[in-house]
Amino acid sequence: LGTGGVGQTLATKIVGVGHEVCMGARDASNEKAAEWASANGAGHGTFADAAGFGEAIVNATAGTASLEALEAAGAERLAGKVVIDVANPLDFSGGMPPRLSVCNDDSLAEQIQRAFPDARVVKALNTMTASLMVDPGLVPGEHTVFVAGDDDAAKQEVWELLKSFGWPDGSMLDLGGIQAARGMEMYLPLWLSMFGAAGTPVLNVAVHVAES
Amino acid sequence: LGTGGVGQTLATKIVGVGHEVCMGARDASNEKAAEWASANGAGHGTFADAAGFGEAIVNATAGTASLEALEAAGAERLAGKVVIDVANPLDFSGGMPPRLSVCNDDSLAEQIQRAFPDARVVKALNTMTASLMVDPGLVPGEHTVFVAGDDDAAKQEVWELLKSFGWPDGSMLDLGGIQAARGMEMYLPLWLSMFGAAGTPVLNVAVHVAES
Repeated sequence: LGTGGVGQTLATKIVGVGHEVCMGARDASNEKAAEWASANGAGHGTFADAAGFGEAIVNATAGTASLEALEAAGAERLAGKVVIDVANPLDFSGGMPPRLSVCNDDSLAEQIQRAFPDARVVKALNTMTASLMVDPGLVPGEHTVFVAGDDDAAKQEVWELLKSFGWPDGSMLDLGGIQAARGMEMYLPLWLSMFGAAGTPVLNVAVHVAES
Repeated sequence: LGTGGVGQTLATKIVGVGHEVCMGARDASNEKAAEWASANGAGHGTFADAAGFGEAIVNATAGTASLEALEAAGAERLAGKVVIDVANPLDFSGGMPPRLSVCNDDSLAEQIQRAFPDARVVKALNTMTASLMVDPGLVPGEHTVFVAGDDDAAKQEVWELLKSFGWPDGSMLDLGGIQAARGMEMYLPLWLSMFGAAGTPVLNVAVHVAES
C-alpha cells in the first residue's frame, strides 16, 4: 500500500526475492502504480485490491494518511494477515522539522492495531531510508533493524522477509509488543538530525550492549 | 546540580580527571551531597552555591525539576557558562513507561536555553546510563555520544571533557543547534525499549554512515 519511494523500493525488492506483488493506491488508475507494475511484471490496483491479493500487507503510505488507506483496504481483507507498518506519522504541514502527529502516549502502529484488531501488525523498517531497508550493505558494518508487535509469529515472518533482503543474523532487535513502536517512531527526529549532520540519509544505528 | 545516581557518577568522574567540584542540591544540608563530598574531597552546597562555584555547570537533576533547580541556581550565576544538560524530561507519575513531559515541538534543553539566554547550553550524555557516560569502554566497540547546542565553542569544551572521560576521537556526533535536543530526548522511549530487550541499561548506539 503506497506508491511513493518507500513503496516502490520495497515492492521492487519483494518482487526481486521471488514474491508476487500487487501495488495498492487510492485509485485503481494511479499512474505511478501502473508504471511500476508494468516495469516489474507485477500487479496494481486499489488499496482493497492489494489487500485482498496479499498474504502479507506492507503499509508504505504516508503516516498521516495510513489509517484512511487501511480503512479503504478493508478490515476484512487485513484480518489474520501480517501488516508490516513502515510508515512514520510525520506532519510536514508546519515546515521543517516535521512534527509527529502522534507520539508519547500512542503511536501510529498502535492506532493501526487498535483499528484493525484482527490484523497482525508489525512495526519495522521505519527507522531508515528506503534504499537501506532493502540493501543493508549500503552502510558499513552490522547495524540494527528494530521490530515491535504483539504477535511473535508475525514478527518471525517479517524477519524471514528481512533475511531475504540481506539482513544478517543478529541484526534484528525485537523490542517487544506493539507499544514499543512509540520509541521507533519517536526516534525519527533524532534520525532527521543525524541525516542533517551526516549529509546523507543512508545511515543507521548499531546497538552495542555490554557483555554480562 | 543533582545528587542522584547520574549526578554522583559524573561528579566523581569529574573529580577523578582533575577538576574541583561543588555538588549542588536544593538544600545546603542535603545528606547525599554531604556524604559524596566528604568521600571525594569535594564541596557541596545549594544549587546557587554550586552554580557560583563552577566554571561549567552540569544539570543532572530530574528533568521535570530542572527548570526550578536552575532558577534556584540563578541566571546571573549561569551567564556565560557552559551548562551541560544531561537530564531527560521523563514523567513517571503515570507509571511505566514514562512519558516525556515536553517533546515534539520543544525540548527541555530548549526550555533551559530560552529561560537562561546567557547560558551556553549543550545537550549531551542524556542518551545513555550514567556508568557508560564516564566509562565508554563498558560497551564493546566504538559507539556514539550526541551533542547539540547553539554555541560551537561550548560544544568543543564539552567534547574536551568527554575526551578526558575516555571517549575516543570520532565518537562525538554534533547534531547542530539546540533544537536537535528534541531528537536526543525523544530517543528515550526507544532506549527504554532497548533496555528492556537487552536486559541491561549498559548499551548504546553506534551511528554508521554510508561512505560517499
